[in-house]
Amino acid sequence: MGADDLLSLAKRRGFFWPSYEIYGGTAGFYDYGPLGSRLKSNVENIWRRYYVQEEGFFEINCPAITPEVVFEASGHLAEFSDLMVQCKKCGQFFRADHVLEEAGVEVSAATAEVVGRLLLKEAGVKCPNCSNHQFGPPQPFNLMFGTMTGPGSAGRKSYMRPETAQGMFLNFQALLRHNRERLPFGAVQLGRGYRNEISPRQALIRLREFNMAEAEVFVHPEDKSWPRFEKVKDTVLRLLAQDGVEYKLTAGEAVEKGMMANQALAYFIVRTQDMFYEFGIDPEKFKFRQHRKDEMAHYASDCWDGEALTSLGWIEIVGIADRGCFDLSAHIERSGQDLDFFEAYDKPREEQIAEVKPIHKVLGPMFREKAKAVAQALESFDATELNTEDNNEKNLTITLGNTEISVPPEAYTVVRELRKVSGRRLVPHVIEPSYGIDRIIFTILEHALETGDDGYKTLKLTAPVAPIQVAIFPLIGKNVLVSKAREVEELLRVANMAVAYDDGGSIGRRYARMDEVGTPYCVTVDFEGVEGRTEQGSKNGESSLAESVTIRDRDSKKQTRVPINELATTLKNYLKTPPDTSGWEKATAAEKE
Amino acid sequence: MGADDLLSLAKRRGFFWPSYEIYGGTAGFYDYGPLGSRLKSNVENIWRRYYVQEEGFFEINCPAITPEVVFEASGHLAEFSDLMVQCKKCGQFFRADHVLEEAGVEVSAATAEVVGRLLLKEAGVKCPNCSNHQFGPPQPFNLMFGTMTGPGSAGRKSYMRPETAQGMFLNFQALLRHNRERLPFGAVQLGRGYRNEISPRQALIRLREFNMAEAEVFVHPEDKSWPRFEKVKDTVLRLLAQDGVEYKLTAGEAVEKGMMANQALAYFIVRTQDMFYEFGIDPEKFKFRQHRKDEMAHYASDCWDGEALTSLGWIEIVGIADRGCFDLSAHIERSGQDLDFFEAYDKPREEQIAEVKPIHKVLGPMFREKAKAVAQALESFDATELNTEDNNEKNLTITLGNTEISVPPEAYTVVRELRKVSGRRLVPHVIEPSYGIDRIIFTILEHALETGDDGYKTLKLTAPVAPIQVAIFPLIGKNVLVSKAREVEELLRVANMAVAYDDGGSIGRRYARMDEVGTPYCVTVDFEGVEGRTEQGSKNGESSLAESVTIRDRDSKKQTRVPINELATTLKNYLKTPPDTSGWEKATAAEKE
Repeated sequence: MGADDLLSLAKRRGFFWPSYEIYGGTAGFYDYGPLGSRLKSNVENIWRRYYVQEEGFFEINCPAITPEVVFEASGHLAEFSDLMVQCKKCGQFFRADHVLEEAGVEVSAATAEVVGRLLLKEAGVKCPNCSNHQFGPPQPFNLMFGTMTGPGSAGRKSYMRPETAQGMFLNFQALLRHNRERLPFGAVQLGRGYRNEISPRQALIRLREFNMAEAEVFVHPEDKSWPRFEKVKDTVLRLLAQDGVEYKLTAGEAVEKGMMANQALAYFIVRTQDMFYEFGIDPEKFKFRQHRKDEMAHYASDCWDGEALTSLGWIEIVGIADRGCFDLSAHIERSGQDLDFFEAYDKPREEQIAEVKPIHKVLGPMFREKAKAVAQALESFDATELNTEDNNEKNLTITLGNTEISVPPEAYTVVRELRKVSGRRLVPHVIEPSYGIDRIIFTILEHALETGDDGYKTLKLTAPVAPIQVAIFPLIGKNVLVSKAREVEELLRVANMAVAYDDGGSIGRRYARMDEVGTPYCVTVDFEGVEGRTEQGSKNGESSLAESVTIRDRDSKKQTRVPINELATTLKNYLKTPPDTSGWEKATAAEKE
Repeated sequence: MGADDLLSLAKRRGFFWPSYEIYGGTAGFYDYGPLGSRLKSNVENIWRRYYVQEEGFFEINCPAITPEVVFEASGHLAEFSDLMVQCKKCGQFFRADHVLEEAGVEVSAATAEVVGRLLLKEAGVKCPNCSNHQFGPPQPFNLMFGTMTGPGSAGRKSYMRPETAQGMFLNFQALLRHNRERLPFGAVQLGRGYRNEISPRQALIRLREFNMAEAEVFVHPEDKSWPRFEKVKDTVLRLLAQDGVEYKLTAGEAVEKGMMANQALAYFIVRTQDMFYEFGIDPEKFKFRQHRKDEMAHYASDCWDGEALTSLGWIEIVGIADRGCFDLSAHIERSGQDLDFFEAYDKPREEQIAEVKPIHKVLGPMFREKAKAVAQALESFDATELNTEDNNEKNLTITLGNTEISVPPEAYTVVRELRKVSGRRLVPHVIEPSYGIDRIIFTILEHALETGDDGYKTLKLTAPVAPIQVAIFPLIGKNVLVSKAREVEELLRVANMAVAYDDGGSIGRRYARMDEVGTPYCVTVDFEGVEGRTEQGSKNGESSLAESVTIRDRDSKKQTRVPINELATTLKNYLKTPPDTSGWEKATAAEKE
């Protein structure tokens, strides 16, 4: 089964479709329709249950439009780019690695020069649009959408955020205060991200405007244990490790063996798997893949991608990384603000303190208009690095802007003393689970869709994500059945279930329509139930709670007759039953024995 | 009480604060913190209950980045602008009407020339920044944030949506199909809108990136009755009508008198009021104001703004308008797509059909390369307009792009015949309730905040919107009380309440903290309850369901002792009790008698 089957169903039944179709479409943008929006809400609310309700993390909401300075600090302005080539014949632009991939040439982390040489050398490389073989030189193309904030010449360069994470870093101080200056804590954001992809493709997989859910978990840099790790340590994970070998290990084993960097990272990997199983993602088609050293950012100490097998191959749907102190440190450096925390010692310690004191009367004539800046730099110089031996006997090198300045010994003195110190300031490290909501939705739908030999389509969505939980049908469009069915609909709506009413076409057709959109249960109101052949039923048209309906199960196709007064409770129990995702774990357990 | 009081509390306690403060801030952007985000979720979920759960409207999610053609069609590109002036001295830009307003000069719907003359003439007019009196000429400044979609020279001009409404219009066909080709139905979208305000100000009131909730209700152009209007027609509304007079009328009376255009419009005005009362918006500080003819868009037939009185004056927090067929017609014209619906007659009718047929052999030599386009234009010419008398005896004027072309009688013929017609195609009309979520949140907080003479602050949020519904305190930080309090916390969390735990500082201080963030109930675990002075309590440290806690009511300050095994049920009942918003209605009823 290819993705086309799913895309056609998704459009026809109101899950999602390409945006702006009445104007010919715009690549990289999709709309969620009525059913897709509900599925998306369900996924997001389950995500919130895990992170906000259960972990107690703080949800925040920050703007997407971001001033340039933020991305100067974060490194996105300099580095958030893909190599782009233009076909010399048709003029179209492509991602260089895509062009090479289509010719079967593997590239990873190559420079523009290397890619340029490959494009020239490899005979099979051709333009995906016009099949020409000649390309211009590859150039980095920054993927951020730019805009101007403010009117006229007062406008400031800004960008649409390519991820939601920066909001949590920029607000670290306020969040730490909200948590009463204690670590660890987490902050989360659900929202849109924007990347001006050179060649968007594959429906929901590479969008220019997409939905994310990100958590930034702030932990002590020297203690990444996690209190509740104990609860999850026996969960079995399928792990494709850095060494290229696939393992089946418990989270506890993975941490003990040193395969996973720490408990906090491992904890969120397990909780992600729990959540994905609840979404109905197929355990047979899901694994965590560890980043190789050469693909990991230099500041990250460990990174695992959750990958799902789809008709488009294995796709990354979540990334969970230990980012160290990179992000906070970058903003500390650029903003000069204290994005750190104070760790109080159990009792005050005596510590040898060394401070550089500038000698202003020497600095003044020596550095003139720069003297003040030099003095400030000297004061914040880390004097512990100075060996006591050569104290005051060497030039100190300080940095002002982009220039290094050498300060001779006569311009400063080093003061040393024993001081009582009550604690120290540390920059927290960050564990970041980052979810691609659209890719998760695509995977959920692909893993749920079953097509019979006769072409009959069933979307086996789990009850927690199904956009419609219960459909209500009158057996035929007769008045007495219709009004009773409407009563039942209202009853279930008030009980807070996601319901739909349908009286169009044969009952078989209606079942088929509901199977196709993943509705777990259909309730049919028929004469047998309404005319009261059950015990205390009434035949005079009065409503009676002893009247009954049938519940039809999507997957077993079994029908059960239930009195209307027990319907809501029965359905609630059905809907609560967790999906059977234990198959893989059981198989694994058996294998291990 | 000014807005400053609220803004300081909002920042200190994690509701909202200006974005990008570590980099000096960027005007017009705000972050929602942990409590503000919960309040926002509550508001949005209640909105969804009204529109999606109760009305059964379709929620969709469309991108914010929008190709230019959409706003060419909608008119935003040409007309979505404010008049901007630049101070000749300091160079800053301002909204011309703001500069005039501050000098006490009223302007509404004035042209650039009129405003320019006012700026010169009025002596009191000065630059809000440097108090200079000289300005450059006022110029329209389009408020849409622009960007480019796609790489390099292949980039297409795009804009961030200034409202969410276009998504519903562009998808009308798909939505109509989803509703099985029947009217009326509604589609809604919650999400962000973007306006590059010339001078953003007033915290959440005029943001450059803001949150909206919009419904587009598609109705039959000749039948705007609303099935459930009967249910709401007796609700009393406070209406400042077009004639400048304030009325207190029921919705039924307002429609009957012709003050409100139709039932559908009136229905959503009532439901909006119901929702706002549930939010805790003060009935004494809220009214609906009808647009004057000169402020209403030419295509709108009626428009009412819901206005709330705040420390910043009366502000619009919702607008409810009958937009006619303007939006769909604009996109029909630009896209050539059929954004209309088919109304089947009860039985087929015989109708006189007139069609213009082009005579190609005449058109060819006459219009050459334009002949085909002229022929097409003739075929879609509305021939019913042609009088039978002068049939084929006059020039027809057609429009190709921007040029009008006159076609002589020898180039076409008019065919008339009687045909059986089974129905007709009509463009629906649209009722649009459009909510500013940030302004609503600001109003909720302002109306809820009470400051005592001693400076004691209580945020009297209603239970449905309160970010924390129940706080749990151990009376003192002793082990037995702490562990019991944690148990109670878990109990209520599982019962799906929004809970917080606090054991820091005196109990009075903790009450004060919770009063300040609007928590309706505080539960205290004390020795009296835990050591089991109640009937079946145990003294040996074992947990017992007969143990008790106190519930403290934020507003009455009354405390009630409740057994732990009844706590969840008791609290759920408390939380469900609707807020007392009947004061104004009662007062109104009394006045009317």
